[in-house]
Amino acid sequence: MMTLENKYSPIGVFDSGMGGLTAVREIMNILPNEDIIYLGDTARVPYGTRSPETIMKYAEQDMEFLKRRGVKIVIAACGTVSSVMASGKSPVSEQCVGVIYPAAEESCRVTKNKKIGVIATAASIKSKSYEKIIKSLCREAEVYAVACPMFVPLVENGYTSRDCPQTVLFVREYLSGLKEKGIDTLLLGCTHYPLLSEAISDFLGPDVRLISSGAEAAKSAKKTLSEKGLLNDGNAPGKISLYCTDSAELFRENVSHFIHLENISIEQRSVDD
Amino acid sequence: MMTLENKYSPIGVFDSGMGGLTAVREIMNILPNEDIIYLGDTARVPYGTRSPETIMKYAEQDMEFLKRRGVKIVIAACGTVSSVMASGKSPVSEQCVGVIYPAAEESCRVTKNKKIGVIATAASIKSKSYEKIIKSLCREAEVYAVACPMFVPLVENGYTSRDCPQTVLFVREYLSGLKEKGIDTLLLGCTHYPLLSEAISDFLGPDVRLISSGAEAAKSAKKTLSEKGLLNDGNAPGKISLYCTDSAELFRENVSHFIHLENISIEQRSVDD
Repeated sequence: MMTLENKYSPIGVFDSGMGGLTAVREIMNILPNEDIIYLGDTARVPYGTRSPETIMKYAEQDMEFLKRRGVKIVIAACGTVSSVMASGKSPVSEQCVGVIYPAAEESCRVTKNKKIGVIATAASIKSKSYEKIIKSLCREAEVYAVACPMFVPLVENGYTSRDCPQTVLFVREYLSGLKEKGIDTLLLGCTHYPLLSEAISDFLGPDVRLISSGAEAAKSAKKTLSEKGLLNDGNAPGKISLYCTDSAELFRENVSHFIHLENISIEQRSVDD
Repeated sequence: MMTLENKYSPIGVFDSGMGGLTAVREIMNILPNEDIIYLGDTARVPYGTRSPETIMKYAEQDMEFLKRRGVKIVIAACGTVSSVMASGKSPVSEQCVGVIYPAAEESCRVTKNKKIGVIATAASIKSKSYEKIIKSLCREAEVYAVACPMFVPLVENGYTSRDCPQTVLFVREYLSGLKEKGIDTLLLGCTHYPLLSEAISDFLGPDVRLISSGAEAAKSAKKTLSEKGLLNDGNAPGKISLYCTDSAELFRENVSHFIHLENISIEQRSVDD
């Protein structure tokens, strides 16, 4: 299907589930006039434990879903997809803004001691994409990467409070090594993780800067659209449309953990729709 | 595709992921001569957080995958699928042995004080299938059902030890109410949960009987096959073939948490294959 994108076309964002909504929230903050179409592939979430081939197949389908709706840019607001994209060429990697490069750039910009921690899903860490990109931007950086496979289930089941003892224990288990290494910057390489920022900062202390991959992707998308003359210069507040591939009701129940929206439109669609 | 099943045909078992392997282990114990074909739908695991419609669509595809391979019986070794099946008629519910009915029957048989606890995924508990079936078998039973959404991620990430503090905390959080009610029987309504038996028994004490849904489904399948004259009466040890819908390598890495097999054959296939 041919579409003619222009500055009034929506921004497309996809993720395996709800995590990418942290990126949507950031886009709404810095680009309040933009329409946004979000796809959460909740029928197949999570992607982080799957193989690279499966992840890329799913990501291509997600991207096509958004392109059929005439978006002017696609953000893969999913650390797993972004890291697999970054490790090889594919239709997705050529047509998407990922969350890795912008966050890696920002991490290199803010670190003083050049010791950067990266936390993400098992698939992202295994791909070594974050490490490679950080090293390519800052050769002297020491990168310490740790998979935190329980963080996504914790967030998705609401265990995000800094006072939740299980969350505190998992944070300590996963981040103790990074603390010992003396990192001054921690890249949150999964869009779910900003919801654990308080528990993470409690453990690492206030001097460690947390870089949110969703927030950096939003800034990067703004820059790209600006360069191409595709920023929406209207005054009306943007329209947010959320799609998911499993039940809209289930999505609605949990959406408030990630984003606060009034009169939110959520529709269930097949990824082939 | 037409197939002609006979007593030498394999037993088919499916689950969303690896949990159903606890049922395979039980079948191997009580029916050592049977060939078994197992499908773990790892490209779409977990099912327990999805909607009933999505779960039934996936289950039908899984069942068809096994039927195309000429199995003589299909066991849905997945508490989530079984509970959704039990709440309505469908092609799957008419052609599958589920894990709920046999486990409900055994729970009613062993309970003395008629206070039965049920733990399972969110989707299973929401369906109320376990409660309805237990009540239909034993009208005076008091059934206390609790969703334990973190148990599957804990098991899949290897947090199964009775000494793991996070596991101990989640067990306490989910099961405190059941302990207060004074249950004497706990139905483990998800095939992952037997891996947490030690931690669960440590908390509930030795007088609470744990009923494994996978073990009861295996016994039920044996009875059904026996009644139909379809038990394999050969002497050779059965052949076990494992299929998964995501990477076989990933599957192999984790399979040892669930089952000990030598020279195990694991192949990745599309669910439509």
